[in-house]
Formats: sequence, C-alpha cells, structure tokens
Amino acid sequence: MKPNIKTIIIVFTVIILACTEAFAGAQDPLPSWNDGPAKKAITAFVYDVTREGSPNYVRPVERIATFDNDGTLWAEQPMYFQFFFAIDRVKALAPNHPEWKDKEPFASLLRGDMKGVFAGGEKSVAELVMFTHAGMTTEEFEQIVKGWVATARHPKTGRPYTEMVYQPMLELLTYLRSNGFKTFIISGGGIDFMRPWTEQVYGIPPEHVVGSSIKAKYEMRDGKPVLMRLPELNFIDDKAGKPVGINAHIGRRPVAAFGNSDGDQQMLEWTQGGTGARLMALVHHDDAEREWVYGAESKIGTFSDTLMAEAKKSGWVVISMKKDWKVVFPFER
Amino acid sequence: MKPNIKTIIIVFTVIILACTEAFAGAQDPLPSWNDGPAKKAITAFVYDVTREGSPNYVRPVERIATFDNDGTLWAEQPMYFQFFFAIDRVKALAPNHPEWKDKEPFASLLRGDMKGVFAGGEKSVAELVMFTHAGMTTEEFEQIVKGWVATARHPKTGRPYTEMVYQPMLELLTYLRSNGFKTFIISGGGIDFMRPWTEQVYGIPPEHVVGSSIKAKYEMRDGKPVLMRLPELNFIDDKAGKPVGINAHIGRRPVAAFGNSDGDQQMLEWTQGGTGARLMALVHHDDAEREWVYGAESKIGTFSDTLMAEAKKSGWVVISMKKDWKVVFPFER
Repeated sequence: MKPNIKTIIIVFTVIILACTEAFAGAQDPLPSWNDGPAKKAITAFVYDVTREGSPNYVRPVERIATFDNDGTLWAEQPMYFQFFFAIDRVKALAPNHPEWKDKEPFASLLRGDMKGVFAGGEKSVAELVMFTHAGMTTEEFEQIVKGWVATARHPKTGRPYTEMVYQPMLELLTYLRSNGFKTFIISGGGIDFMRPWTEQVYGIPPEHVVGSSIKAKYEMRDGKPVLMRLPELNFIDDKAGKPVGINAHIGRRPVAAFGNSDGDQQMLEWTQGGTGARLMALVHHDDAEREWVYGAESKIGTFSDTLMAEAKKSGWVVISMKKDWKVVFPFER
Repeated sequence: MKPNIKTIIIVFTVIILACTEAFAGAQDPLPSWNDGPAKKAITAFVYDVTREGSPNYVRPVERIATFDNDGTLWAEQPMYFQFFFAIDRVKALAPNHPEWKDKEPFASLLRGDMKGVFAGGEKSVAELVMFTHAGMTTEEFEQIVKGWVATARHPKTGRPYTEMVYQPMLELLTYLRSNGFKTFIISGGGIDFMRPWTEQVYGIPPEHVVGSSIKAKYEMRDGKPVLMRLPELNFIDDKAGKPVGINAHIGRRPVAAFGNSDGDQQMLEWTQGGTGARLMALVHHDDAEREWVYGAESKIGTFSDTLMAEAKKSGWVVISMKKDWKVVFPFER
C-alpha cells in the first residue's frame, strides 16, 4: 500500500511534536518550577546576560550570584536551624556542667523552657552561641557540626536538616553554575556552621560561603598549628552587613541576588545598584500545606510590608512557594 | 637517485629528534625555571597530588594554592609598592591641602624626607595609609588605584609596577591552575589595593585575593547604595594573621603555599600542618644583577636566619632567584 501524502504529513508532525516535547523536557533546567512569571524572569535574565552579543552580556568572571541561606535555600521554621544546633550542643555537654542547673540561660534551656532562655535577651542568646561555638579549634568545630548534621532531625518532619532544602533552589543553583555563574551564600548564619556541609548539599565550596563569624587565633598546640575559636564577635553578616560581607569576600558586585527577608534588602539594593541587567528575587513563604506561611509578623525570616513595597517599586521578583514551585522539598518527589 | 638506507635512517632520526624536542619544549609548563631542585619539587608535587590513584591524590575542589604578593609575585624594593601609591596620592592631593606644609607626616613626605616620615613611627604611617585609603567609596578607590597602576612608574626600572612581576611565578600560577588548582593571594598588602589589577596581571579574580583591610560601611548617598571606606583598621593579614585570613576567606587549608619572608612563616606552617602531600616554598632574593639581594638584615621582606633554619628543618623549598630562574621579569625576554 502506498501511503497518501496526508498520512505522511500527520506522521511527521506527530514525530516532530514528540521530539520537541522530549527535547524541551530534557532541556528544562528548572523542572520543579511552574511556568510562571518567576521562572520566566530567571531564564530571561540568564539568557540576556550570557548570550554573546547581548547588550547586557556579562563576562563569566563577573557572573556572581548570591544567596541568603535561612529561608532561601533551606527552611528556618520553627526556629533557625543553627539555634537547634546550639540547644543540642548544650544538652550534649550538660553532664559535664552540673552548675548549669542554677545558671541562666542554661537552666531554662535544659528544662525546655525557651521563653526563659529568651527572657535574658540578646545577652543570653550571645552567651549560648559563644559557649557552643567557641573554645575549640576550627577543625574540632567542623567535626562537631558534621556529627550534628549527620544525626539531628527536624522537630516537625523528622528529616535531617540538610534535607529541608528547597528543590527548586537546588535546581536554580545548578542552572546558574551551568551558565557560568559563581554561586555564593551570603547568610546571617555562622560561616563555619555552614561550610562543613554546603559543598555536599548545595555544591557550594567553603570559599563561596560568607556568613557571620567570631574571631580566631593562630597558635601552636603540642607543636601543631591550630586556629582557636574565640568567644568574641568578628562580623555580623546581616542587613547592611551583607553588602560589606560581599565586598570583603568577593570584591565584586553580584549581578543576581536571592533572599527571603528584611535581612536581605540591602543585598538586593546593592546588587541592583550596579549597571546593566540585574536580577533580584525574594522567596515568599506562603505555602501552609507544604512548608510554612509567615511574613511581616514573624520574628524569624521577617518579610515586612516595607520590603514587599520595596520589591514592587524596584521590580524585584517575588517567588511564591505556593504558586511558583511544583515541589518544595526533595523528599516530596 | 635512489637514497640508500643509511640516509633514510639519518633523516628519520633527525626528524624524530626535532619533533621530540619541539614537543618537550611546547610541553614544559615552566620554561623560565632552570631544571634544578625547586622546579623538580614543584612538578613532582603536582604530579603526586593530581594523578588518579596516587596515595596523595587531592580532589580538585581541595587543590588550594596560596601566594604572598610583595616579594613573591611582584617586587618589593626599594619599598613596598603600596607605599609609593600612598606617597603619590598625598602629592596629588597636596594642592588642596595647604595646611600640610606644617603638618607631619605630610610635611616631611612633601619635602621628600622619608626619614622624617618614618620618625613618627607606626602612628605616622597609619595616618598616611588611612588618609590615602579611606574617606571614599569602594568604587572611587578602585578607580584611583586603576589610575595609579596605569601611570605610575618604578623609580629604578621606569616600568609600570605591574610589569615588575616575576615571570617564573606567572608560569607557576598558570601551571597550577591548568592542573585544577585554585590560586589565591594571601598578602599583608591592602586587599582593595590589589583587587583592581590582579585579574589582568596574575589571572587571579578579586574573590581569590585576601589581604589587610579597613572597615567599610553601607549607606545610601543620593538614593544610590555605596560602601564608604572608613579610617578604621579591620584586619592585618600578616604573620599569624595569614592562617586566620585563609580560614576566613577560603575555609580550607592550602595544599601548597608560596612566600618570601618572615611574614609568611605561619602560612607555611599552617599549610604543612595538614595531612597528605604538601608543598611549601620561599622565594629567596639573592640576585643582585637582575633583582635585589636582601634577607635577614632587610626591613622590607625580612628573610631571617630563623626562617631559613625553619625552612631547612621542615623541608620547605627555598627558591633561589639567581639559580632557579632563567628570567626574573617578563620584560627581560
């Protein structure tokens, strides 16, 4: 039988459509993102700055993308995960410190009375942080963090904290790097608390992690050089500190910046202040079912009305977890 | 005429020898290095840590090599080049500061009396540095440095300072990077004084430059975000500060470190303190004809007898400019 011309055209059309779809599917670098305005803004920006001949072309060495961590790359509810680390650390050390039964903020913490801990204000929190983060070498601290990350579980999901990361943001990190970007973390969290696991979890090596820090001192201990972590604040990498941290570590203005709270506003302003195309985006926690809903009223990850107004005024992308993300956590898939 | 077999063999041998030599020449990644113990130590180390299956194999992400700048990558005589920058800056600004005629250390400096400048001790030098390095935005300072680098000339050679770099070290940087290493500068010099030109001169981007710093403050100026450089010391990246700076910026211990003076001893100790194969090396300024001869007695780039003893004891490579380098500066070629 000789196939007629109509049949041939139909068969070819079906084949071409199937191929196109398969190709597009295999090609989609952001499969967990819905085809909404956020995804469109991201892919259009990347195309604009990487295409040779584009008026907004950015050389690969200048393709710096910065990411907040808490609430942007991983979750931050019901409390910053680093604070759970500090609590677990105090509990682990309590047997060697019988005096803590009568000493605040340790006594409240060991009774599970978090209100009592916070009653002491910033001073109490600082004391907890210093006690649990200082007084050991950098390598000892790294091992402590690695041990905690391997064993600790999130109170709500029962998952390791390093699984409480956002699948769409993991895809975004990979997508940017495959387009020649260098991806940096710029977090208010502790720089040495993040570095032991960011490479494995995010593909971000320690030298691309910027965060808050305490001072360290070089010394010889039994003939071996060590860096001792001192109970003395060095730098707070939050709010107006973020552009300072970016300048100190990178020495170049980002072309793209991603955050989720008032603590990121200055980083986004600083990014936008450069010339040429820039991408500024904020993750909005509006998904009660798959994650949490919080914003202006929240003490953790505050997303104030002022920030929302600034985002609208300045053309910053607001990423809706509910509408823009097909999946929130990797373990949902 | 039919060529006899002997002629054919000779012709082939000549061709093969020529090819082998050309191939070996094209292959030598360190052509300005004599085939001495220093070159051998470097190439043996790189082979050892990059060869798959080697007991000392180091993953590419961990291949961190750190370099001092003054006296290691570029010259530092008759004075640290950054100090020439400060002097030139004071001279450029003097017309707007008639009061300097009676105010130290400016008065001495403008008379060309360097002894008078240094008579005021550290306080005078700090005042000069702060005046010439602070009080402007980070971007203004970058432009000032770029302008100086483009026009200033070394007092002895008449060359731009950025040509007073060591050809063998440029080759070493490229060689290490082509073997998967990340090359960092760890210098006592100003971080923001180096960053405007290190990418072009050394192929080292700003985020791989660590140095001494002053504080900066984020603020809005006419609705535009800026980072103001404050006349307040932030960090001294020298001696015991070098391992601290390495930890703060890289978060990983180097596997190779290159210096030239007492200021680098702790960086080399810290590097050697890690496990596996490590390479520590010191450039020794012993070439009066092509560069300078100085060491234990020099105030600039002091290479004390203690350091030399430590190098011998610990197996650190001492690179003799005179014996190990065919060429010192690129313009000699």
